[in-house]
Amino acid sequence: MRSLIPASPLTLTAALLIAMSPFGASAQDKKGVTEPELKYQAGGSPMAGEPMYQSTNPKAPPMTVAEFDTARKIYFERCAGCHGVLRKGATGKPLTPDLTQGKGTDYLKVFIAYGSPAGMPNWQTSGEMDEKTVDLMARYIQHDPPVPPEFGMAQMKQTWKVIVPPEKRPTKKMNSYNIENIFSTTLRDTGEVALIDGDTKQIINIVKTGYAVHISRVSASGRYLFVIGRDAKINMIDLWMAKPDNVAELRIGLEARSVDTSKYKGYEDKFAIAGAYWPPQYVIMKGDTLEPLKIVATRGMTVGTQEYHPEPRVASIVASHFKPEFVVNVKETGKTLMVDYSNIEALKVTEIGSAPFLHDGGWDSSKRYFMVAANNSNKIAAIDAKDGKLAGLTEVGKIPHPGRGANFKHPKFGPVWATGHLGDETISLIGTDPKKNKQFAFKEVAKIKGPGGGALFIKSHPKSMHLYSDAPLNPDPKISQSIVVYDINALDKGYVTLPIAEWAGLTDDGAKRVVQPEFNKAGDEVWFAVWSAKNKQSALVVVDDRTLKLKAVIKDPRLITPTGHFNVYNTQHDVY
Amino acid sequence: MRSLIPASPLTLTAALLIAMSPFGASAQDKKGVTEPELKYQAGGSPMAGEPMYQSTNPKAPPMTVAEFDTARKIYFERCAGCHGVLRKGATGKPLTPDLTQGKGTDYLKVFIAYGSPAGMPNWQTSGEMDEKTVDLMARYIQHDPPVPPEFGMAQMKQTWKVIVPPEKRPTKKMNSYNIENIFSTTLRDTGEVALIDGDTKQIINIVKTGYAVHISRVSASGRYLFVIGRDAKINMIDLWMAKPDNVAELRIGLEARSVDTSKYKGYEDKFAIAGAYWPPQYVIMKGDTLEPLKIVATRGMTVGTQEYHPEPRVASIVASHFKPEFVVNVKETGKTLMVDYSNIEALKVTEIGSAPFLHDGGWDSSKRYFMVAANNSNKIAAIDAKDGKLAGLTEVGKIPHPGRGANFKHPKFGPVWATGHLGDETISLIGTDPKKNKQFAFKEVAKIKGPGGGALFIKSHPKSMHLYSDAPLNPDPKISQSIVVYDINALDKGYVTLPIAEWAGLTDDGAKRVVQPEFNKAGDEVWFAVWSAKNKQSALVVVDDRTLKLKAVIKDPRLITPTGHFNVYNTQHDVY
Repeated sequence: MRSLIPASPLTLTAALLIAMSPFGASAQDKKGVTEPELKYQAGGSPMAGEPMYQSTNPKAPPMTVAEFDTARKIYFERCAGCHGVLRKGATGKPLTPDLTQGKGTDYLKVFIAYGSPAGMPNWQTSGEMDEKTVDLMARYIQHDPPVPPEFGMAQMKQTWKVIVPPEKRPTKKMNSYNIENIFSTTLRDTGEVALIDGDTKQIINIVKTGYAVHISRVSASGRYLFVIGRDAKINMIDLWMAKPDNVAELRIGLEARSVDTSKYKGYEDKFAIAGAYWPPQYVIMKGDTLEPLKIVATRGMTVGTQEYHPEPRVASIVASHFKPEFVVNVKETGKTLMVDYSNIEALKVTEIGSAPFLHDGGWDSSKRYFMVAANNSNKIAAIDAKDGKLAGLTEVGKIPHPGRGANFKHPKFGPVWATGHLGDETISLIGTDPKKNKQFAFKEVAKIKGPGGGALFIKSHPKSMHLYSDAPLNPDPKISQSIVVYDINALDKGYVTLPIAEWAGLTDDGAKRVVQPEFNKAGDEVWFAVWSAKNKQSALVVVDDRTLKLKAVIKDPRLITPTGHFNVYNTQHDVY
Repeated sequence: MRSLIPASPLTLTAALLIAMSPFGASAQDKKGVTEPELKYQAGGSPMAGEPMYQSTNPKAPPMTVAEFDTARKIYFERCAGCHGVLRKGATGKPLTPDLTQGKGTDYLKVFIAYGSPAGMPNWQTSGEMDEKTVDLMARYIQHDPPVPPEFGMAQMKQTWKVIVPPEKRPTKKMNSYNIENIFSTTLRDTGEVALIDGDTKQIINIVKTGYAVHISRVSASGRYLFVIGRDAKINMIDLWMAKPDNVAELRIGLEARSVDTSKYKGYEDKFAIAGAYWPPQYVIMKGDTLEPLKIVATRGMTVGTQEYHPEPRVASIVASHFKPEFVVNVKETGKTLMVDYSNIEALKVTEIGSAPFLHDGGWDSSKRYFMVAANNSNKIAAIDAKDGKLAGLTEVGKIPHPGRGANFKHPKFGPVWATGHLGDETISLIGTDPKKNKQFAFKEVAKIKGPGGGALFIKSHPKSMHLYSDAPLNPDPKISQSIVVYDINALDKGYVTLPIAEWAGLTDDGAKRVVQPEFNKAGDEVWFAVWSAKNKQSALVVVDDRTLKLKAVIKDPRLITPTGHFNVYNTQHDVY
């Protein structure tokens, strides 16, 4: 069952990394953003007139100050996501000088140029780097990693903008949109989200945001939409405005992935929270202005071995429905933090260890258990938000990547939550009902087979009898450009394939990766992004869930690199 | 009221630092201890045949590898306590290269040699360093600070020894000592504690421990005595043994100050906790074996400015009587952590910010409020252990140093808690009864005047009508060698002076600092250490609390450098 996808120079993680790297609009390029201030000193003997970088590590190959600076930027943008800013290793291998110097420049160049089946991108043969850059990077990683700057309250406050103060905002909805059926679609490479009317399929507004918005989240009331870019910029959009747009923004670090808002009774719309990759920290903000209130560092001990990790990045965050708590998942330490926001002045945090590296996940259908992927140990941890403990930890396939996962009622196993995998072709089903189906609870009850690995998102809906799975990172375009659908009541029959990219009718030769099934509010249609490059045409494709037929194609010159999209109602109420 | 003690080349902090530096028996010298592993590379051009230290900071003056290594050790032993391992500053000023290089070697040499009235020791004129060493240190601090190694679970487990396993220990008390009246006295420079029979004044045993034991703590049952050395070694002593001695030991880092054991009903003797200066972390252990269970890093954001601090050291720790919690005070961040030990697998920590840098403190007489000194902001924070919040924060004198403080009932202000100060001659009284004396609660209700600054410990007892205050770090031997006593019902009358060192009848010229008043169990006699140098005679002096007359002098060749001492019953029950 666990076969890997066919080996290819461009493997899954490679493709993922390439796809997600902030090319062209790095964190450092953003207006008002402090470029990591690293004090480089020119020193040593000049070579061809260029000041040399004074390395902390004399065995490292020489580099000029200019070379070091260029390499540092490239590393931060393209390599840090997998290998970590401090190069301690994460999805990618550790790259500290004690390891890299033993390999030597020539070996490292080959590895960078051609990649590896284990997931290293083929940077040179893919055309992403030239030979000179590969040589530069091979030398750079033999030097000690420079540490990017911290980003505390003073830095955050400098980036904080209240564009429309609460008292100047509408007191009632000023537009005629059915806002519960709006979709927020990430326009990855332009640093925007498109707000699309789910009823009319018309674009409501294109809103400027951070770069490559990772997720959209909706406040408990449904009024405010929060998005966070990979550059750690949060934008807060008021859906009550005549034309919904930004009302506040804040940067919480140099790189980030997650944002959410308080949902517990009595705390609706009161707080927001965001988690950063660098610095490793999360921040609690005022829910109406994004004013940063409390920053908490996540540096600490790993689960199991209890050794100190200097860079425990904050991955997924969700808001509990059982307590006034945020559920904060920390990647490298393998710990879920239950952050009680009822008293910010005496913040109470419960730390639940499971397995490394925690990444994405979603609630089970009861919204009591948060199912989170430990993608470096091929496990799913079930966090009990009511009792504040680990309810279960189960082995699944290779590199689980559920997005928020999919909940449905299995004919035999009762309520299950499903995840696809980046590293194999299976979908794992996990029982989530410890009351009536105790023997299946938090165990992998079944594996169903898909067309191949490279899956990012899986989705169902309480009103649907279908389970959808994408595979945008599969190297086979036939697979990456289509979606597979299962009948929940006949999973053994296998899937049918919907040629979503073909249905989009795009005429150029773009990558047309099909990504992220997302239901509308009614649960009777499913939206997909057909994601091509920045200079190619992309589209959104809407499928009728009952008939599995094409319902609509949304094309617009402004829809550049659409990737994730989020329906307001389903996101607000954690319906997936 | 706030007059400083007379300026002197050897100021208070200076004297404290000298007194407390682990000369002669550094953390690195201990058996089984990993010397901080810093990878020094020889590099650059050789000077006089010596390999040069390859600095990360080319503007720093050149040093040989050997020089750097020596300076690093001296810094860790003598300077880090005040300036911090990473030189970010604490009680002493920050000493990062961006600051030190601007001063230059000559300026720095003068400062190191002669000290300053603000607290910097006069290292050369006091004879502690020669000119060559001063020059070495002046150059060293212009280089980037090397980071000592982490000390995680693997390292701790290597140091863990169960000398007598629980099943081989006595099942009942095997000696005839009145163990509730035993005193545990730190023999600072020999790395031992003396267990002394409080009834007979006889030494029961001299027990090998870590270097310069900082405190002794007693388990809830009164059976086990825990001590922690500055080298972060914990020893656990079983008072039921025929001859009480070590039954377990553990090292929790490279430098530490605090240890305590669980006291809440149902958790008696179940857990121990210790806090480290380096690495900045605390560890929860099994209460019967010291097996390390859970390590928690304290690196994080400072109170107020919310900027990241890489070295927030753990200062005082106490066990709550209201909840299954440890109260952990973190110096640099100014935060008190309420660590709930009822479920180690899902550790719950409530963070209460007050002011930097939290250091020592004690319970009020109700044991509900922990009164902790913020010695860098001249404040006392009252932490409410019942409601888990900051109950008050009040300004006091300069550098409060209460030890555990002293509780008594003031004729006008009701129950008060008192602290002396290192930096001035006053004693601050703070109201601690928010129910019946609300207007005085957690406010400084009075300042009483002592003979001069340099106080370390203050003490009273529920059965005593006296308040005792030492001043061992006062530069005037008349003051440092005696104790002052106040009548609680007539504080305005001032103090009487007891010439404790004189009473000890020591004939040599030792420093004879009088330190730490400690009551016996009955509360009718008070013990003092008369602390001279390692090669001089020291003694313990016992005073009758009712008559203030000399009751006994304890002299023994084994009583080398006695400093702190702890009565079992009073420590067990937090009576002070």
